[in-house]
Amino acid sequence: MNYRLLLQYDGTDFHGWQMQAELRTVQGELTRVLSLLDDREVVVHGSGRTDSGVHAEGQVASVKLQRDFDPKKLRNAINGNLAADVRILDAQIVPDDFHARYSATGKTYCYRVVDAEVLSPFWRRYALLEARELDIEAMRECARQFIGEHDWTAFSAAQSDSENRVRNLTELTIREQSEWACAHLIEFTVSANGFLRYMVRSLVGTLLAVGRHEIDSATVRQAIEGGDRSLAGATAPAHGLTLVRVAYD
Amino acid sequence: MNYRLLLQYDGTDFHGWQMQAELRTVQGELTRVLSLLDDREVVVHGSGRTDSGVHAEGQVASVKLQRDFDPKKLRNAINGNLAADVRILDAQIVPDDFHARYSATGKTYCYRVVDAEVLSPFWRRYALLEARELDIEAMRECARQFIGEHDWTAFSAAQSDSENRVRNLTELTIREQSEWACAHLIEFTVSANGFLRYMVRSLVGTLLAVGRHEIDSATVRQAIEGGDRSLAGATAPAHGLTLVRVAYD
Repeated sequence: MNYRLLLQYDGTDFHGWQMQAELRTVQGELTRVLSLLDDREVVVHGSGRTDSGVHAEGQVASVKLQRDFDPKKLRNAINGNLAADVRILDAQIVPDDFHARYSATGKTYCYRVVDAEVLSPFWRRYALLEARELDIEAMRECARQFIGEHDWTAFSAAQSDSENRVRNLTELTIREQSEWACAHLIEFTVSANGFLRYMVRSLVGTLLAVGRHEIDSATVRQAIEGGDRSLAGATAPAHGLTLVRVAYD
Repeated sequence: MNYRLLLQYDGTDFHGWQMQAELRTVQGELTRVLSLLDDREVVVHGSGRTDSGVHAEGQVASVKLQRDFDPKKLRNAINGNLAADVRILDAQIVPDDFHARYSATGKTYCYRVVDAEVLSPFWRRYALLEARELDIEAMRECARQFIGEHDWTAFSAAQSDSENRVRNLTELTIREQSEWACAHLIEFTVSANGFLRYMVRSLVGTLLAVGRHEIDSATVRQAIEGGDRSLAGATAPAHGLTLVRVAYD
């Protein structure tokens, strides 16, 4: 049977998604627990890797198991063997050809920034502190030119092994709000049919530089068009980033 | 000079507010840092104690210092010497007769419950998981009879040393919402001119029992009127509770 798992994790104490010897990773923990339950070594596929420190509100994984599990009981059995910083919210039986990574048609990430002089203890694991006041309108105006199909070479890891760096960015919204215990939280929500490594963090780092009036919109356009990494802003730190959801047809 | 401090803390890794030898407490940390800055042993007063595991979004403290500090620089100097799970949001110079505890005229607490089958990792430190579906309307109806001036003997610690257990409860609202990463968060907001030990957690524990149809409103009325602790519900765990703000004239 092929199972689809919806899961959340607080990435703070994980070395990212991907299994690594001797390090605590989400894929590693799931593989350990599912292999235990299925009584053999199983392979857990994620919709994609998340880097060390990145969180997930709606990561999706798929796994084929030999034994027959009621989905809800499977969910509870997995959760019973995991620490509280990772939880399976839902398990479903899916057709054999479903694959968490290859079946995915898009993803949405959220990057959170606290724009204040002091970082609330409640957001210290989940948001970046930006002490300077950000020009939200300048960031929104700049964000518009990211929308659409572009080659994202200037906004991804230098050693990225992706051959094709064209992705279609369908959403980039910037929302200001007062959240739990925090007067000024800024949320960058970014959706695309796929992402390169460090792409969201690089986009957000660039927008923050625009918000601080360190880079202007025209320079950002040049970076997009010319693929010149040096024109883009710094890569924002991992802990502000959360994978919100993965889309499937 | 007399200073008033507004502070937040994630109570998870503190043994409550009150200073205790050998244990990490909020008052202990503040006393350590402020004594260092003022070059003598200072006394830090809080608006009240919070128990081990209880959080604060808006605790208030007052302290008299010999040295003259610019309030903003004082705030930054304190934060620079504290771990990230406690932060001074604001420091102000106040008249000599201001005292964080004795000048307080009221307080507001929030108790958070995730009503779902699985507890989101993002709420594991700040909300109680309630797996059974709660009858919100029954809880709201019951909550109404808590409003006003009552003797809260049935809803406080058995060994409470408060002589006068009459407090005026001015607000008890129950709000359902989808919060960050959590589809069904229930927030109990409670305001009064003062609280006895365990009072909010006992009120919430009782309301949860009502929401599960284990206790009815009439029994709760009897508990209020007769002061009979055995008629009230269990005391809800500390980690769902947050001190939201302290009122001063």
